[in-house]
Amino acid sequence: MPVNGKPRDNITISDRGLAYGDGVFETIRIHAHKPVLLERHLERLAKGTRRLQIPLEQSLLEQDIAQLTTEFPAQGILKIIVTRGSGGRGYVPGAAPTPSRILSLHELPDYSSTQPGKGIQAFVCRQRLAIQPALAGIKHLNRLEQVLASLEWPNPGFMEGLMLDMNDHVVEGTRSNVFWAESGRLMTPVLTGSGVAGTLRNHIIDTMQDVVEVEGCTLARLCSADEVFFCNSINGVWPVNTLVAGETHTDFGRLKRRFSESCTDLFDSLLANQDI
Amino acid sequence: MPVNGKPRDNITISDRGLAYGDGVFETIRIHAHKPVLLERHLERLAKGTRRLQIPLEQSLLEQDIAQLTTEFPAQGILKIIVTRGSGGRGYVPGAAPTPSRILSLHELPDYSSTQPGKGIQAFVCRQRLAIQPALAGIKHLNRLEQVLASLEWPNPGFMEGLMLDMNDHVVEGTRSNVFWAESGRLMTPVLTGSGVAGTLRNHIIDTMQDVVEVEGCTLARLCSADEVFFCNSINGVWPVNTLVAGETHTDFGRLKRRFSESCTDLFDSLLANQDI
Repeated sequence: MPVNGKPRDNITISDRGLAYGDGVFETIRIHAHKPVLLERHLERLAKGTRRLQIPLEQSLLEQDIAQLTTEFPAQGILKIIVTRGSGGRGYVPGAAPTPSRILSLHELPDYSSTQPGKGIQAFVCRQRLAIQPALAGIKHLNRLEQVLASLEWPNPGFMEGLMLDMNDHVVEGTRSNVFWAESGRLMTPVLTGSGVAGTLRNHIIDTMQDVVEVEGCTLARLCSADEVFFCNSINGVWPVNTLVAGETHTDFGRLKRRFSESCTDLFDSLLANQDI
Repeated sequence: MPVNGKPRDNITISDRGLAYGDGVFETIRIHAHKPVLLERHLERLAKGTRRLQIPLEQSLLEQDIAQLTTEFPAQGILKIIVTRGSGGRGYVPGAAPTPSRILSLHELPDYSSTQPGKGIQAFVCRQRLAIQPALAGIKHLNRLEQVLASLEWPNPGFMEGLMLDMNDHVVEGTRSNVFWAESGRLMTPVLTGSGVAGTLRNHIIDTMQDVVEVEGCTLARLCSADEVFFCNSINGVWPVNTLVAGETHTDFGRLKRRFSESCTDLFDSLLANQDI
């Protein structure tokens, strides 16, 4: 658990990550002792620190990761938090802050009993996402909206909650991105006002660019889709069997899963590449 | 620096305060070795933990404060952070979390060279506040909007930045509330969509309820006010001499300061009460 390159499992209470959520994070799948989509994760992290004007020396972070490599498990999660560090005067950061780099290893959640890759039940969260272009797309540490949405969980039978923004647009899952199929195209919401641009989402967009569109989406549009799935870089692709919005249940055909299946294959091939 | 009642200056990196900004805080003025407006601060903190469903035992926090009393300086700041503690599965909190209580003492900022109580220059921040009713009013740890606004500071001659929300409504200063005078009434923005309901703001509203109105406000309305001031419980009242929005400068009359003066008196009497 290195903090700034040294074995440590705590940070000072003056760290701005704690005080203001002044930082960004990544959770990276470890498979066959190697991180999956590492470059994309580091790219998004760098985008986040640039947006927040946190002067991270990326090479130091890469050293941290290299040092931890021998401890990577066969399956697991590498979590990286980068904060602006301590200092400054209240919200005003110091002139030359020293960012904190916090790495930790975690177990992969065990979903073998529910097999969400075969299809899940999801619910529509009452908690909305605020529109804030300055923070949209990056994976910053201000995550109270997701925490509040997670407190709504109706029962453990649901595997994900769908979040809309204040303008009734579909944005993402509480911890994943969402895609839907329509007229033979694969679509995913535009994330310029809120949401996190996931690494698996971006990998799907880039790899399948001939069929993918990034568009605004209402709940009605999503509910009339041919198929819907959530995805993230930890768990891969979860097709939606049923989406529950209050009293309304929308069932998606379990036979038409063309894009869920091709994106599952894409994720599986990312893992398989690590086995080589 | 007690953390959960024990002398400590760090927290575990698994604390949800760091991971998600999953908590609330207070900064309390210490004057004559005693906290000012302590009851109001504890009330707002309790409102915040209820809103976020953090099961804080308030009596434990009161014990922490009591234990620290002998160390209270003549002048200073007591900062309290309460987080949901560690645990849970990602954003989903554990069933019975143990909140973290983090107290620290800080020096009062020294403004003797600029004397902002006599009038300040303020600027209008480009950074907007998102509309999020679920988080409005409470002093939670998701403060990236204020950090980004503080990064805009044009030069140290400015003492505060005014923040508008996404709908062009005036909300607050980066670290203070705002009031304006109009037709012999004292007005302050409604804070149901964003902003922090400050303890000095609420004390002014309650004490001067015969003349105070809480209303929506545009920048144009604010700029045509008879007087404008910022206030917080640390620094008291800062009347605005000049408000700069891009190329536009609005000068407020330095002679008409009826409400700035009465609210300054109110704050001074809060401090004077501590001297007894």
